[in-house]
Amino acid sequence: MTHKEKELKHAIVQDYETGEVLMLAHMDEEALRLTLETGKAHFWSRSRGKLWRKGEESGHEQLVKDILIDCDEDTVLLKVKQIGGACHTGYRSCFYRTLDGKIVGEKVFEPEEVYGAKGRSE
Amino acid sequence: MTHKEKELKHAIVQDYETGEVLMLAHMDEEALRLTLETGKAHFWSRSRGKLWRKGEESGHEQLVKDILIDCDEDTVLLKVKQIGGACHTGYRSCFYRTLDGKIVGEKVFEPEEVYGAKGRSE
Repeated sequence: MTHKEKELKHAIVQDYETGEVLMLAHMDEEALRLTLETGKAHFWSRSRGKLWRKGEESGHEQLVKDILIDCDEDTVLLKVKQIGGACHTGYRSCFYRTLDGKIVGEKVFEPEEVYGAKGRSE
Repeated sequence: MTHKEKELKHAIVQDYETGEVLMLAHMDEEALRLTLETGKAHFWSRSRGKLWRKGEESGHEQLVKDILIDCDEDTVLLKVKQIGGACHTGYRSCFYRTLDGKIVGEKVFEPEEVYGAKGRSE
């Protein structure tokens, strides 16, 4: 585990009105600071090794209404107003399937229309 | 990151009726298998390096009603009926505080009455 990974907090993102869990991401201190400053969710991408703002490319921003922290302070819970869909696959939530692959989530956009032919970047 | 940590999935636990996010834990394959077999949430404790069943000592079990998996298959969402409280501090949810320390959660048990003088073990 790198120094960077040790510093990261898990960040659960939940719709502030419906309670639907939308995604899990990670935050470093800067991501949390920028989230608090701007009111828009920022994360640290472990796969890309960089800071990103949710919706910076897709427009599918997360407007943060509340943030809670857990008992051992390694996870935050963001309650947000989700613009569009949280998942790069086009679903409102990243949790759109059961373990056996049945689709239970709501598709709200077509990824190729949002991200173009180059595919996902968030 | 050890082999074991690479194998782990994040597990978000949510009340199946209210949508309240209760805790974040981790699961290895055996924890997931036992959860499916028994209908009770099992996890891998990264700090203690062992498998555990939620409520094995406190009685505060999580009866699993549904499991969803996210787009990149590294996180599961457990929708549960929570017996008692999810948090070892006595709160119903581990997310009982704002970032500036204000208590917003509901305390549902006294830890010393449940875990005894030796303190937390889950």
